[in-house]
Amino acid sequence: MKLKLKTVFLLYFMVSLMGLVYALMQLGQRCDCREHDLPKDRTISQLRGELHKLHEQMRKSEPTKASKKTSLPTIYVITPTYARLVQKAELTRLSQTFLHVPQLHWILVEDAPHKTPLVRDFLAASGLTYTHLHMLTPKERKLQEGDPTWLKPRGAEQRNEGLRWLREMAAAAGGKGPTIESAVVYFADDDNTYSLQLFEEMRYTVKVSVWPVGLVGGMKFERPVVENGKVVRFHTGWRPSRPFPIDMAGFAVSLKLVLDNPEARFDGDAQIGFLESSFLQNMVTMEELEPKADMCNKVLVWHTRTEKPKMKREEALIKQGLGSDPNVEV
Amino acid sequence: MKLKLKTVFLLYFMVSLMGLVYALMQLGQRCDCREHDLPKDRTISQLRGELHKLHEQMRKSEPTKASKKTSLPTIYVITPTYARLVQKAELTRLSQTFLHVPQLHWILVEDAPHKTPLVRDFLAASGLTYTHLHMLTPKERKLQEGDPTWLKPRGAEQRNEGLRWLREMAAAAGGKGPTIESAVVYFADDDNTYSLQLFEEMRYTVKVSVWPVGLVGGMKFERPVVENGKVVRFHTGWRPSRPFPIDMAGFAVSLKLVLDNPEARFDGDAQIGFLESSFLQNMVTMEELEPKADMCNKVLVWHTRTEKPKMKREEALIKQGLGSDPNVEV
Repeated sequence: MKLKLKTVFLLYFMVSLMGLVYALMQLGQRCDCREHDLPKDRTISQLRGELHKLHEQMRKSEPTKASKKTSLPTIYVITPTYARLVQKAELTRLSQTFLHVPQLHWILVEDAPHKTPLVRDFLAASGLTYTHLHMLTPKERKLQEGDPTWLKPRGAEQRNEGLRWLREMAAAAGGKGPTIESAVVYFADDDNTYSLQLFEEMRYTVKVSVWPVGLVGGMKFERPVVENGKVVRFHTGWRPSRPFPIDMAGFAVSLKLVLDNPEARFDGDAQIGFLESSFLQNMVTMEELEPKADMCNKVLVWHTRTEKPKMKREEALIKQGLGSDPNVEV
Repeated sequence: MKLKLKTVFLLYFMVSLMGLVYALMQLGQRCDCREHDLPKDRTISQLRGELHKLHEQMRKSEPTKASKKTSLPTIYVITPTYARLVQKAELTRLSQTFLHVPQLHWILVEDAPHKTPLVRDFLAASGLTYTHLHMLTPKERKLQEGDPTWLKPRGAEQRNEGLRWLREMAAAAGGKGPTIESAVVYFADDDNTYSLQLFEEMRYTVKVSVWPVGLVGGMKFERPVVENGKVVRFHTGWRPSRPFPIDMAGFAVSLKLVLDNPEARFDGDAQIGFLESSFLQNMVTMEELEPKADMCNKVLVWHTRTEKPKMKREEALIKQGLGSDPNVEV
């Protein structure tokens, strides 16, 4: 009996010891939670989708309330604009893009001696969060009728005016607060085409984020070339040796970087093609650029250009006193 | 000794059993990812919180809107499209417009021998209700490289294919149901610019509704001239004597009218400027036209044209074997 019990005890002891060792090994392994993550990730993306939809709906009905509530970083979009026949059309479709983007603040800067009623009324009815500014380009820097568009860079003064407003706004807020510390600045011309995904790509910019731009510079696209997660050079058809051969539509900067570099601005006297570089070159190095849009493999913005409409019949009718009613805004 | 051993054995048995039970409980949990979970759980609960708040807000502010939406007449928008460098950009901004319009069904008809992957993938990701069709324009009716755009009307076959689909869909439904009896059909080219208000203007079309179109026909705008609530003539710079001197973007028809006139279609052989008339002239009279947009005093749609992008640098780079990666969709 004595022996039997001992044997049983020993056996049991051995077996349970092995079990204990196994259990301890399991505990030591930290835990592989990847598979476990999947449903949570799915829940998160589902919830985000639902939130986005609701925000959309709410934005339609009450634009300002909804945008105040989110904790997303603000995207400040600076857009230079000038009076021309297609201006209202261009602003219309651009505003429709922006209406889909949560937490976007549009800084629209007119190249004009004063704010125009057309733009003021348009913005007031847009449903967007916006700031309306104006800054006239000095005559000597302006393109003259008939000049090729590449002769002088356009929109430098207006973008600088947008930057000035941002710095002033931030200073007034003591440089603090969620709408400042995490915010992003993007320069969006009023004739380009922007996918909605682009804005989510740029939203968490640390310093300067970059991505391809379609249909620009005589190319299907220009883009930063990425190797091992870093930008190493640029795919462009013209002077790749420029400090930053990137189109205005191809980068976003954090507001923090703008505030940390109070002198950074666009040089309206810069040689054509060097306007972007004049702003970026003292703020960031190529190595620091943050490649977005699937490591610069996706085109999410297009450098579209709208034709100047011909007005031949209008002119002929005006001569006959039969021109289109000037009281109807186009 | 006997008793002692038994006691020790029993004690050990009890303790190890508790351990085993605990270990089994742990195993049952698959893996302890609680600590790892915390940030995700926090995200989920934050998102849920936000969702809940938004739902609350929406319930308070607009209890009826949701139910109203479903009873709105459907707008079927027929858009002809063809492969070109700016196609994806144009479809992108057009889809962003349509995403704002409730109860819109997009019928996108490719001028191609088969549906293209670019358009198929684009539509699938668009978030819109859509029907994807294709219909190749016969060679003899197609504009040739270098032809002026006004030489032959474009998109006739594609619009007719859209009409065919609508008639078939309606027939399959027995010609009844709210999505058929109150529905509206609009022909929206993929390069124009549409305000959101335009769609609400056309939504309750009885037969044919009309409004001004901006930047068309060499004019600031063309429009029906309204006197005492009726269209009496047309403001246009060219052949006002045409049956309906209206641009494609300037009218919408009720689906009922389309179904009541099973032969109505666009005549691809029509003289330039007479394509719209070829469709409308046997369905409606000028007196029956329903003037919208503040009695045709507001421009809510613009006949914008996008420049064909130049590809000179691309071509030069291709010769050097350095062209843009053809695997990147533009």
